[in-house]
Amino acid sequence: MEKVFVYDTTLRDGAQAEGISFSDTGKVRFACLLDDFGIDYIEGGFAGSNPRDRKFFNDIRKEKLNHSRIVAFGSTRRADVDAKDDVQLAGLLAADTEWVTIYGKSWLLHVSDVLRTTAQSNLQMIADTVGHLKVNGRQVIFDAEHFYDGYKDNAEYAMQALDAAVKEGASAVVLCDTNGGTMPHEAFEITSQVCKRFPDLEIGAHTHNDSGLAVAVALEAVRAGARHVQGTINGYGERTGNANLVTILPSLELKMGFNCIGRDNLKKIHKVSVISDDLTNQLGDPRQPFVGRASFSHKAGAHVNAVQKNPVTFEHIKPESVGNARHILISELSGGSNIKMKAEELGVDISAVDKEQIQAILAAVKEKEKKGYSYESADGSFKILLHKVLDQHKPFFELEGFRCIVEKRGPNEPCLSEATIKVKVKGETALTAGEGDGPVDALNQALRKALVRFYPEIEEVSLSDYRVRILDPKNATSAVTRVLVESGDGKRTWGTVGVSENIIEASWQALLDSVEVKLYDSE
Amino acid sequence: MEKVFVYDTTLRDGAQAEGISFSDTGKVRFACLLDDFGIDYIEGGFAGSNPRDRKFFNDIRKEKLNHSRIVAFGSTRRADVDAKDDVQLAGLLAADTEWVTIYGKSWLLHVSDVLRTTAQSNLQMIADTVGHLKVNGRQVIFDAEHFYDGYKDNAEYAMQALDAAVKEGASAVVLCDTNGGTMPHEAFEITSQVCKRFPDLEIGAHTHNDSGLAVAVALEAVRAGARHVQGTINGYGERTGNANLVTILPSLELKMGFNCIGRDNLKKIHKVSVISDDLTNQLGDPRQPFVGRASFSHKAGAHVNAVQKNPVTFEHIKPESVGNARHILISELSGGSNIKMKAEELGVDISAVDKEQIQAILAAVKEKEKKGYSYESADGSFKILLHKVLDQHKPFFELEGFRCIVEKRGPNEPCLSEATIKVKVKGETALTAGEGDGPVDALNQALRKALVRFYPEIEEVSLSDYRVRILDPKNATSAVTRVLVESGDGKRTWGTVGVSENIIEASWQALLDSVEVKLYDSE
Repeated sequence: MEKVFVYDTTLRDGAQAEGISFSDTGKVRFACLLDDFGIDYIEGGFAGSNPRDRKFFNDIRKEKLNHSRIVAFGSTRRADVDAKDDVQLAGLLAADTEWVTIYGKSWLLHVSDVLRTTAQSNLQMIADTVGHLKVNGRQVIFDAEHFYDGYKDNAEYAMQALDAAVKEGASAVVLCDTNGGTMPHEAFEITSQVCKRFPDLEIGAHTHNDSGLAVAVALEAVRAGARHVQGTINGYGERTGNANLVTILPSLELKMGFNCIGRDNLKKIHKVSVISDDLTNQLGDPRQPFVGRASFSHKAGAHVNAVQKNPVTFEHIKPESVGNARHILISELSGGSNIKMKAEELGVDISAVDKEQIQAILAAVKEKEKKGYSYESADGSFKILLHKVLDQHKPFFELEGFRCIVEKRGPNEPCLSEATIKVKVKGETALTAGEGDGPVDALNQALRKALVRFYPEIEEVSLSDYRVRILDPKNATSAVTRVLVESGDGKRTWGTVGVSENIIEASWQALLDSVEVKLYDSE
Repeated sequence: MEKVFVYDTTLRDGAQAEGISFSDTGKVRFACLLDDFGIDYIEGGFAGSNPRDRKFFNDIRKEKLNHSRIVAFGSTRRADVDAKDDVQLAGLLAADTEWVTIYGKSWLLHVSDVLRTTAQSNLQMIADTVGHLKVNGRQVIFDAEHFYDGYKDNAEYAMQALDAAVKEGASAVVLCDTNGGTMPHEAFEITSQVCKRFPDLEIGAHTHNDSGLAVAVALEAVRAGARHVQGTINGYGERTGNANLVTILPSLELKMGFNCIGRDNLKKIHKVSVISDDLTNQLGDPRQPFVGRASFSHKAGAHVNAVQKNPVTFEHIKPESVGNARHILISELSGGSNIKMKAEELGVDISAVDKEQIQAILAAVKEKEKKGYSYESADGSFKILLHKVLDQHKPFFELEGFRCIVEKRGPNEPCLSEATIKVKVKGETALTAGEGDGPVDALNQALRKALVRFYPEIEEVSLSDYRVRILDPKNATSAVTRVLVESGDGKRTWGTVGVSENIIEASWQALLDSVEVKLYDSE
């Protein structure tokens, strides 16, 4: 199978999007995830101009990557300085990567209206920049910005821009549909011309989704001979987003017969998509092709019936090939086996549990999910729920009440948070107070103080993650809120969940489950 | 310009999606909206089998539509009964529409594995059904289910299925990519063959988005000769959704030179998309091509600068042509030109502001963003920040203090939330209390009560969105929290932001900005 190289620009072009941002450690985690996934090139950021991006290049050097090449991104030199004196290019070299990508103009409109220089001067800028980077030992990829628009405007000039980079030794040239307005058939024709001109060169396509066609344009470019595609995970990117690699890769691998990351790695694509949403705090699109929760969901009726007879009737690919699963919404039996498998995984013995009880568990989960609970990241709460439905639940303490107070005494005074809690433990009553950075933190402190005398193992527990999701934001401050808490005791971690219109109540439920999981496991 | 007919199936195929539902009156409103928008065919529902869908056909008959044809949907007759005795077909006729669409099988796999009948019998079912509907005075559209998959499997049989419908007088045949697995170039080739076989017939395409290609496949079908496209508004539909008409129409009209709804109606497409989300209670995708809030947003300083010089540099079409508008985003990547354009967009006159002050604004934005603020969705807070930096800020009231109390009196008692607030307004002190679903809701109620006596316009404001983001979730309950609030007064909406380790403090900041924006604008 012929290879198509995959180039991820999530950390640079993706991070330009409204609402997308990575923490510094998140960037490194993301790059390691892509390395394991088999991505060929990982663009780390705009090395020449952004100090935070530079930090990434220092950090990632300490990681051992197995497959991916880290790429630093920059632009051609300024019109009025030598390449060797260009500050931005100096920054690009300082990133100290073997591979660099530079973008340059290939549309005369941009040369005249944006760069405000001459056609000839722009070609010289491209040539000088590539030459300078080659002299400094770099492998260079040339992104021809607005290539398709430029080609439609003046094909010969657009080609000369590529010539300038290739003559100086660029390893690959990438045709960009920067404005996202190119139609798939245009991309096919234009890319074919470029492949004819440079038959031995790695030709790439970098597309944007402004017309809802970024994926189609990329696939047509590959059909025309491109062997390098650029995009972002989940299609993050400015405006309507970049080409979505999570959509492109399955089609290239499963339908068009190319080798990109390989069929085994393709099975990780669902996980890669979910973790990326986590790292960037995105909700995730249930309708996302291939990996969305709804992608292989079948409703009751003719479709479910047909899929049971033969999945090919209503599934264009096998869900497992992209790490996803079929969901048949009413199949209580397949639900039952899920419950059994999950209980096993959590170390809860339900071998003696009968069919009726399994149905009761399923009904309880459905009831809870209807209210907004979600157990995918909340194994701990699922365990507590199991105990409750099976009448194995024993309370370790009883809440008699709590009160949280947040007070602000003037416009520039800090908010002070205090909580008091009263619990009954082993026949005794404990009344304690805590303060914290916010009401939930204060409540958490007070609860721990109350319990530690009776259950010293509580001291081992710390909260390692706290997430808040507004489930129906349109109801504004009275919307239903889901709180997810991750706890750990140094040996393992567990997730718990709470749901309420009141964020304190939702947090309380998650805190309570968190503590109970620890106490169960310590027995 | 050549005409392409537009067929909307939102009320039938779109409403199959998880989470999409119309009220009965909502269906009628939606159909009237599409009529005004210039849609040629509106499929109203599965008339043959669904009583609620039948109600729609009764209701819509009372409305005066100017342009659209209402279409009732059903299937071919059952294998074992005459068409005239088929209950489902009787229901279809009872809808009493001039136009009907029936779907039938054109893929042998479905004939044998799902229908469990013979190849010949299926062709007879198609012919009989179309004939029966024609005899009853209907105009018939034939949807060939799984046509592209069927053609790839057995081209001659798939064509025979179309023949059977055409011979009996079908007005149009529609090629369906029911499983959404067809590649654009395949659709082009196969549709070309069909158009060659039926040179004078209206050929349509009905596509699904399982490979993220529904729009591209529809456009390629039109390039191949189809002159009828089916889809849904905003791409609602089972699994990953149907072809999105909101994405298809602008490309057909603005890029491919076809006449579908006309350029004037195209300007309504943004509104049609938003109202449809409202009618189905969807949040709306800010990244949706052409109509999303982010579709013409510019963030990077270089892009903003270029767009100022010439919008064509980074916009593939004019935002106004689809009823959308350009937005300038403010972030740490911004330059002076972002600030200027943004201020203009917000109606803040900064023409007299000098370069130094622009630098001061930029510095303030960067400082705030470092703390976790984000102004991309918070125009309102940016406006307040502008006022503050330019020393034009005047406080409408002064906070003397507030206190929020959340109390829970037992394990099964609800959490009660109360807030008191004390503010000084126009020399007077107001002390008020509020209760709510949570501490922020209570605080919001108390604040409004305190201000409404002095500023009655506050009553017009309601909160329409409330989002919480934990910026460093690993710090758990003491993590820094960003709250985004969207407010509206019936005429317009504005976003505000707050950041703190204390969620109440963060919410307070966003609420305060929200109120101040309203009061500034009311002066």
